[in-house]
Amino acid sequence: MLSFASDYMEGAHEKILDKLRETNMEQLPGYGTDEYCERAKRKIKELCRCDHGEVFFLTGGTQTNQIVIGSMLASYEGVIAAESGHVNVHEAGAIELTGHKVLALPEHAGKICGEELREYLRGFYEDENHEHMVFPGMVYISHPTEYGTLYTAGELKEIHEICKEYKIPLYLDGARLGYGLAASGTDVTLPFMAENCDVFYIGGTKVGALMGEAVVFPEGNAPAHFMTIVKQHGALLAKGRLLGIQFDVLFSDDLYFEISAHAIKMAEKLKEGFHKKGYSFAIDSPTNQQFIILSNKQMEELSKQVSFGFWEKKDEGHAVVRFATSWATREEDVEKLLSII
Amino acid sequence: MLSFASDYMEGAHEKILDKLRETNMEQLPGYGTDEYCERAKRKIKELCRCDHGEVFFLTGGTQTNQIVIGSMLASYEGVIAAESGHVNVHEAGAIELTGHKVLALPEHAGKICGEELREYLRGFYEDENHEHMVFPGMVYISHPTEYGTLYTAGELKEIHEICKEYKIPLYLDGARLGYGLAASGTDVTLPFMAENCDVFYIGGTKVGALMGEAVVFPEGNAPAHFMTIVKQHGALLAKGRLLGIQFDVLFSDDLYFEISAHAIKMAEKLKEGFHKKGYSFAIDSPTNQQFIILSNKQMEELSKQVSFGFWEKKDEGHAVVRFATSWATREEDVEKLLSII
Amino acid sequence: MLSFASDYMEGAHEKILDKLRETNMEQLPGYGTDEYCERAKRKIKELCRCDHGEVFFLTGGTQTNQIVIGSMLASYEGVIAAESGHVNVHEAGAIELTGHKVLALPEHAGKICGEELREYLRGFYEDENHEHMVFPGMVYISHPTEYGTLYTAGELKEIHEICKEYKIPLYLDGARLGYGLAASGTDVTLPFMAENCDVFYIGGTKVGALMGEAVVFPEGNAPAHFMTIVKQHGALLAKGRLLGIQFDVLFSDDLYFEISAHAIKMAEKLKEGFHKKGYSFAIDSPTNQQFIILSNKQMEELSKQVSFGFWEKKDEGHAVVRFATSWATREEDVEKLLSII
Amino acid sequence: MLSFASDYMEGAHEKILDKLRETNMEQLPGYGTDEYCERAKRKIKELCRCDHGEVFFLTGGTQTNQIVIGSMLASYEGVIAAESGHVNVHEAGAIELTGHKVLALPEHAGKICGEELREYLRGFYEDENHEHMVFPGMVYISHPTEYGTLYTAGELKEIHEICKEYKIPLYLDGARLGYGLAASGTDVTLPFMAENCDVFYIGGTKVGALMGEAVVFPEGNAPAHFMTIVKQHGALLAKGRLLGIQFDVLFSDDLYFEISAHAIKMAEKLKEGFHKKGYSFAIDSPTNQQFIILSNKQMEELSKQVSFGFWEKKDEGHAVVRFATSWATREEDVEKLLSII
Repeated sequence: MLSFASDYMEGAHEKILDKLRETNMEQLPGYGTDEYCERAKRKIKELCRCDHGEVFFLTGGTQTNQIVIGSMLASYEGVIAAESGHVNVHEAGAIELTGHKVLALPEHAGKICGEELREYLRGFYEDENHEHMVFPGMVYISHPTEYGTLYTAGELKEIHEICKEYKIPLYLDGARLGYGLAASGTDVTLPFMAENCDVFYIGGTKVGALMGEAVVFPEGNAPAHFMTIVKQHGALLAKGRLLGIQFDVLFSDDLYFEISAHAIKMAEKLKEGFHKKGYSFAIDSPTNQQFIILSNKQMEELSKQVSFGFWEKKDEGHAVVRFATSWATREEDVEKLLSII
Repeated sequence: MLSFASDYMEGAHEKILDKLRETNMEQLPGYGTDEYCERAKRKIKELCRCDHGEVFFLTGGTQTNQIVIGSMLASYEGVIAAESGHVNVHEAGAIELTGHKVLALPEHAGKICGEELREYLRGFYEDENHEHMVFPGMVYISHPTEYGTLYTAGELKEIHEICKEYKIPLYLDGARLGYGLAASGTDVTLPFMAENCDVFYIGGTKVGALMGEAVVFPEGNAPAHFMTIVKQHGALLAKGRLLGIQFDVLFSDDLYFEISAHAIKMAEKLKEGFHKKGYSFAIDSPTNQQFIILSNKQMEELSKQVSFGFWEKKDEGHAVVRFATSWATREEDVEKLLSII
Repeated sequence: MLSFASDYMEGAHEKILDKLRETNMEQLPGYGTDEYCERAKRKIKELCRCDHGEVFFLTGGTQTNQIVIGSMLASYEGVIAAESGHVNVHEAGAIELTGHKVLALPEHAGKICGEELREYLRGFYEDENHEHMVFPGMVYISHPTEYGTLYTAGELKEIHEICKEYKIPLYLDGARLGYGLAASGTDVTLPFMAENCDVFYIGGTKVGALMGEAVVFPEGNAPAHFMTIVKQHGALLAKGRLLGIQFDVLFSDDLYFEISAHAIKMAEKLKEGFHKKGYSFAIDSPTNQQFIILSNKQMEELSKQVSFGFWEKKDEGHAVVRFATSWATREEDVEKLLSII
Repeated sequence: MLSFASDYMEGAHEKILDKLRETNMEQLPGYGTDEYCERAKRKIKELCRCDHGEVFFLTGGTQTNQIVIGSMLASYEGVIAAESGHVNVHEAGAIELTGHKVLALPEHAGKICGEELREYLRGFYEDENHEHMVFPGMVYISHPTEYGTLYTAGELKEIHEICKEYKIPLYLDGARLGYGLAASGTDVTLPFMAENCDVFYIGGTKVGALMGEAVVFPEGNAPAHFMTIVKQHGALLAKGRLLGIQFDVLFSDDLYFEISAHAIKMAEKLKEGFHKKGYSFAIDSPTNQQFIILSNKQMEELSKQVSFGFWEKKDEGHAVVRFATSWATREEDVEKLLSII
């Protein structure tokens, strides 16, 4: 059975497995203090051109969001996010567990809009009862979004300007960042993000690693004793090497960018194929997630041969489904898919 | 440089690496719903002889303690532990982060004593102010303890009886369980634990895995929606296969027990060697951690050639240091160590 | 200056002050174990016709919502509320502080609608990703709502039926309950509430008391050790008598109902007066809060002589403002107000 | 029946009741923004000689401890307290509920000792594993302590110096502060406390008020948006006047000091009386709580005519019991007590 169900169905890029084996019996200090972690951090800071930055490795996206957001907010603050944002919908209340509200703004193809953000912040401080309300303490965006869409550099910059004006940090969730950076036409780069975000993470789990996310504080602005905070959340791996080695491999010889580009190439091929056969798209996504409208009958038929994600009901007769490519997608599988639709 | 600094210095047993590679490109469903997880759970339940049990895989010990304890206590309850217990000292407040107090009892070579436990519980309910106090809601023990010591089956049973009397669960932290099960003279087995604990975990991180702990609820008594609770704590791996595959390998062909037995054999050799040369031991540990008293001078000299753990100052002229063996310890390294002490 | 700014501007009904003085030097046990608390609880249970019920006294509305909701939800659950609900907007994140999300439904004049509630619950369980989402664990309604509106008995019953179907409790916030019970045309009574809510509170702070809310669990279904939970939240008064005495007075000789009826009479007079002079109402409220549309100029003029609450901007030239009456409103003040509008 | 069971058995000083009645129908703004709160704050700052200080009113001691400690600690920090400290024993886990550990030091007649505090802090930072442990983030002391004892100015200053050295705040719980300030021989005054504590509270509940504690941040060093934090904890009274008026009365015409002095006079009379009759004291307390050793038979006999607090079992034949005086104690009752012992 063909599968385009998600971008975390396979293990890891084979170079990662090679390196894990190669280094396996080296005796290394624990908790992320080993040389591989150091090297990976250095490479990431170089790529982001933030020499004074700090990098931390965590295990998964929800964990990362929970720890970053929870540790950067004051107790009386919440985090602004698109209503479709992962932190607002699909993290089982991980943010609220840390005592903070998610302040939802309308989403536009998964993105928040600068103007609405500004209006929200202005309105909050104008409200004479705002001291009885949750203060906006951070802005969260995902890039690519949950709908596969991307912010332009201009949009990102605008949001950042608003954040600066209100003295709240901007946090970018890059669970699928590789696929965003590799997308055609994007003008957002790692150095640009380092300049325009207060904190962001570079996703590994969905981009070639067994698991792992690299959190970047571009200005060395991590909360004090961040490592202890990570430990307190049960998120500090004894064998921190496991993350260091993976990111060291991903950021050697452009691997992260190459495998991301492959996923995008596969997505474009898939997109073009569906398009040629007359299918409609629910969203125009330039990244590895493609949202396609199928009739109920098409969906039923296709699901006999291919697995994909059900996204939402469109109307009585149609549904939106998601096809995801990844670093692991084989071109022949895309071709097989296109031959049967 | 020789190193006996800890039992998590190397990667993973090579059979685990082999299996990760072998299965790497299989497309599997996420979040622990894959067949490897299922198979590993089945094997563990068979070994524990608890057909109706439930098994969950988590990433590390602190995370496991936090989630198990946090989810099994009522809001007004705390967890009883030895004052030297990992949850009380070395988890950066992970239990308190979930809103619960650790109620510390005196430790005896790392263990709590049934009589003192009973007295504590009796005293609590007799105190007319107990409704203004934290209710004891669970007993936590580690086995082996942080000092490498073991409960006897009799001691474990006694504690369990007290827990049943007060209707609170008994939780056993088995971060180094393999080394406990393989120790000479122990009468505690997996089926015995399944009968006498309400929940326990089988440690992988320190016993051959890259990372991973297997939580066992022997009576199928996991809190409702435990998987969602795990997600809410940011502890649910997208590629849950990573844990399933590792435990599947560890519990195939007795691997977990064999590699644990190897560590014990190495510890015994080390222990005997130090003993023969006249060294004193701070604690009589039957497991993979050996606590040896060195003069300050001995410590200084030895640390030039061997790395080990500083445990605590004994007196002005002496210290207690820890030597740990593991599944990865090479016999020749033990011999080398013994030749230079 | 006339003031209709809120319903908590004065102290307490004089009968309460009398009783506080009369009982002042009696030596009573602390923490709500005194005879006045017992007597007040008994009276409330009689009025609600719930012999097996439990009653607890707390100090304020936000505190009550926080403790009731926090203690009745499982960790992975959130509370459903109207987006305009007090818990969602004006409690500074008190619910999220306990680790729980507020799941907002659309509001219709401050109320949630049974049909939308049912659809939300149905949709949640149908979503194949719902185990990664916050489970709906309770329904919160306010009665009167923040807009002064009331549920009909039929609406309340419908919501309760849905809750029963999904096995989640229905909680009614009665901060202004007296004014709801005294409103013309309402068919909701205390016994009806006791039958159709799993927990509710009868507000004292805004209805004649210095402070205090009486939480009723009609089926004796309070969470175990609720008093300890209250203590843990810092909400247990040493001199619990202070709440017992007040509620004892309020529920003697129908005082609570009489003073509520007075506030409603004042509100109706005010409403009629504004209506006669051609003012429009933003909401048709049958209770003590009246939401009136003023032109900016009217608002400016009127605010020189009367204080009232700014509610929200209606359009460029108009605003919605709130006039609140209460147990303490003097008829001559209403007349004075009507004479100057 | 005579009662010396506690210092919160009666209502409030009659001047407070007078003032509540006198001001009852004044229409005042809510949430502590009224003129009585302002006036009371001003008086307290004057008495403490801290013009730049900030004062907040809360309802009870546990609430105050929870909010002050919870809002001043970083997430990875705990609060140091005597093992007998109220926050460690009798607040039902209110501190842990905010996510923080209580780090218990040995108690000496209820007090912590500067030397042991210094040793604890030194040891913490010397421990190479301290990043995996709860950081000491505040020192909590009670004055008078739970055993009625007092710190000397010298002891307080020493503790403060240590706190400054480690850059952690010193917090003084003054639930019974009036009785401490009025004790014979004390050299601790309000201005001294304002100089040597980073935050403290002046207790009202046990010293003449219906309820209420006044938190003082002598340097204006309250956490940002403290009022919102109070609201978030459900601790902001709508009728904040209730606290303002009470503290305004207590700090007018030296009332607080006079009624405290009365309690001390009564305690001294009681103490002398017991002493003369040959009773032993468990602790030498200079304040309103006296801890007396009774044989079991004496205890049984006396409890037929007097109520007092059982403190703890001393040995098989004896117990320690507590007699508390207060602002409300009548001299004739003390005489009656002394006549029957």
